[in-house]
Amino acid sequence: MKMVTSQIARNINHTNFGQISRSAVYEAKRSLLNWLGVAIGAAYHDSMDKVLNVSRLMESSPQASILGRNEKTDMLFAALLNGMSSHIYDFDDTLLETVLHPSSPVFPAVLAYSQYKKKTGKEVLEAFILGCEVQARLALAVYPSHYWRGWHITGSVGGIGAAAAMSKLLGLDEEKTSFAIGIAATDPTGLREMFGTMTKPYHPGKAAMNGMLAAFIAGEGFTSSKQALEAERGFINVLSEETKMELLTDSWGDKWEIEKNSYKPFASGIVTHPAIDGIIAIQKAHNLKAEEVEEIQVTGHPLVKELTGKTDFKTGLEGKFSVYHCVAAGFLHLKAGVNEFTDDFVNNPKVKALRSKIHLTIDESIKEDQVRLTVKLTDGRELSHYVEHATGSMDLPMTDQQLIEKFKDVTGNIIREEAKELLIDQVYRLEEIEDLEGFFQLCTPVESASRI
Amino acid sequence: MKMVTSQIARNINHTNFGQISRSAVYEAKRSLLNWLGVAIGAAYHDSMDKVLNVSRLMESSPQASILGRNEKTDMLFAALLNGMSSHIYDFDDTLLETVLHPSSPVFPAVLAYSQYKKKTGKEVLEAFILGCEVQARLALAVYPSHYWRGWHITGSVGGIGAAAAMSKLLGLDEEKTSFAIGIAATDPTGLREMFGTMTKPYHPGKAAMNGMLAAFIAGEGFTSSKQALEAERGFINVLSEETKMELLTDSWGDKWEIEKNSYKPFASGIVTHPAIDGIIAIQKAHNLKAEEVEEIQVTGHPLVKELTGKTDFKTGLEGKFSVYHCVAAGFLHLKAGVNEFTDDFVNNPKVKALRSKIHLTIDESIKEDQVRLTVKLTDGRELSHYVEHATGSMDLPMTDQQLIEKFKDVTGNIIREEAKELLIDQVYRLEEIEDLEGFFQLCTPVESASRI
Repeated sequence: MKMVTSQIARNINHTNFGQISRSAVYEAKRSLLNWLGVAIGAAYHDSMDKVLNVSRLMESSPQASILGRNEKTDMLFAALLNGMSSHIYDFDDTLLETVLHPSSPVFPAVLAYSQYKKKTGKEVLEAFILGCEVQARLALAVYPSHYWRGWHITGSVGGIGAAAAMSKLLGLDEEKTSFAIGIAATDPTGLREMFGTMTKPYHPGKAAMNGMLAAFIAGEGFTSSKQALEAERGFINVLSEETKMELLTDSWGDKWEIEKNSYKPFASGIVTHPAIDGIIAIQKAHNLKAEEVEEIQVTGHPLVKELTGKTDFKTGLEGKFSVYHCVAAGFLHLKAGVNEFTDDFVNNPKVKALRSKIHLTIDESIKEDQVRLTVKLTDGRELSHYVEHATGSMDLPMTDQQLIEKFKDVTGNIIREEAKELLIDQVYRLEEIEDLEGFFQLCTPVESASRI
Repeated sequence: MKMVTSQIARNINHTNFGQISRSAVYEAKRSLLNWLGVAIGAAYHDSMDKVLNVSRLMESSPQASILGRNEKTDMLFAALLNGMSSHIYDFDDTLLETVLHPSSPVFPAVLAYSQYKKKTGKEVLEAFILGCEVQARLALAVYPSHYWRGWHITGSVGGIGAAAAMSKLLGLDEEKTSFAIGIAATDPTGLREMFGTMTKPYHPGKAAMNGMLAAFIAGEGFTSSKQALEAERGFINVLSEETKMELLTDSWGDKWEIEKNSYKPFASGIVTHPAIDGIIAIQKAHNLKAEEVEEIQVTGHPLVKELTGKTDFKTGLEGKFSVYHCVAAGFLHLKAGVNEFTDDFVNNPKVKALRSKIHLTIDESIKEDQVRLTVKLTDGRELSHYVEHATGSMDLPMTDQQLIEKFKDVTGNIIREEAKELLIDQVYRLEEIEDLEGFFQLCTPVESASRI
């Protein structure tokens, strides 16, 4: 049996920032900008306060920032909390091949430690990219059986990604790195049954916390298996049916999984994105009023109906699973961000009235990232638009400008406009930043933020 | 589908100390005495210091005691550390049907919270018995496929036991209790690949920590699935092939799983116990010297050879997997406790010499808890002994006196003799103790203990 875990540990140990491609570094920064925005945006979600209360019960020490808030907790709770917040809106990044959200289990651990121990921007990027590489390869090795068996892959492999990243950041040697992976591998988090509850975003948070703890104790010399991933009763065999072990180590360094990262322009399920794209395109061209609309006809892939066919609902969360609502939001606001999925907005009479005019037809010949839209107007005109590739798909990635706009939108009035500009600038030149304290300062909220 | 998780939550909520049988309460106290002894006994193991260093890195608050040591940590780290220490020597209690070690994931959480929040002895027993009941029934529901797939059942179901116990102790309502179970269910710990490393005892410790955290955040109103155990992508279906759901709730309160708890008289694998029992019986009758022995013939069940057939080894840990060493220890010391499995003892020339005189024959007709021993002496005599049931088996449970002796032996010189006597007394009348501070004080070590 090939010693896969040891080889991964060796790869982490021997790979440094200079050996990582410039395109991987660039995509890691885009990942950070996207991740940071959605983390700050959800910082005041109800579930965050509940976990913060528990950190207070533990009398947790103020070591690292809860991004977007004034509170600090110890590094482990900061990893948990920032990991949670970044996944609360289901608006974080995705590696589309495995539906792994790569940033939310890794950045929280790396950033909490980097803040407390004054690591540099370059070290953050290096650790993040290596941790991502390990978890993304592991996800590929166990996908799809692992996911279909019921594991929320972002939580279950994410802890190993966090442990790998932390091992690099802590400067662990090969053996200790393999132990860190082992300790994280024995501690996976995330059943898909939890989708739709606060426990879903708990998964990447807990993965960040578990992986960080694993790396800390491995750093102290705590021992584990050196074959945690590949052994007969190791992670891969116990948690999946696949045994694509070679994917874990083959061609290491030739390409970087983070380069394939994708970002969601809209805060709803990915199958709704072509339709939102389409209606925004029509609106940008015609600037229609809702009253002018007789009917909107959406023709899409069968999954659009299966996953987002909700017509009768009362909450913003449910609105994410209604293509009718998504199209209405895109029509009215030219976007479908966090504010378009509040309870208030989905129950707004104007929004409900427009939703009732939207109809869905499925067409087996249309691909998942495509859609055909036709708007029939009261004056008899018909406006049609065909979306070939949705924004955020592999064929049409979000541009830097779109990511920046998303960041500004999703962080709302939690942080100041000037802080947003400075953060965007710092993220794009992160490898030059020696002292990250200013970066974390910029993530603290304006005075009124706690009332959002 | 029957709402199993909700029913369990209701059962926990509606069952109080007065409804628990006296025999279950009695066995819970015996469980505590055994658990406390092995936890204190391993308090200075190398792995404990490594995790304590990490708690120091977190600047963890001194809320709860590390039993047998002077250090305190926050409740979560105390749960982790005391859960680890109690499993380090593989000397804790076992529910033989499922090889679940019921105390090590539950007591650490219950005691840490009870110390910090001044709960009573009765509340400790109530929470422990209910948590045990949930995890033991869950273990029965998923055994054996769960274990054979590669899950260390004590870690993987233990977190749910800890969450159930903590829910009772925290006084959570039914819904919050079901959420606590859900959050713990999504966070299982323990791959069997880790056996033989420090990560094995990490499993019950981490289970205690995960389950405690789950109950704390559920107590704040954090939501989870209400069908975490029985759902299609819930714990039981994802982590096992069995679906014996009825075992989780049938005849609740009629019998208590803790009544079947068993304790190990010797610090080695259970298949070696009949042979150790046998040699001690011969020695008690004849008081032989090693020099008088020509040969010792052990005739046992096939598993004795398969699991404990090691003849050539260098460490105390390996000695636990050598029936030859175990018999030599029993012959020389009339016991096989922690001190008989040190590196020094297994490498002692006198011990090695005796080991070389011991031979093993397997016999398919002999049961697992039986053995036949024959000692051939240099003067030509032959002394034989047949063990029908090993001490600690269901048919011959350890007596209170034997448990007390084990407690005194395993805690060594970490705590004072008078403290041992007082602790034994307090454990056996735990339900009368309103203020547990004295109990925790008695678990603090003598001054020299840190040098053990």
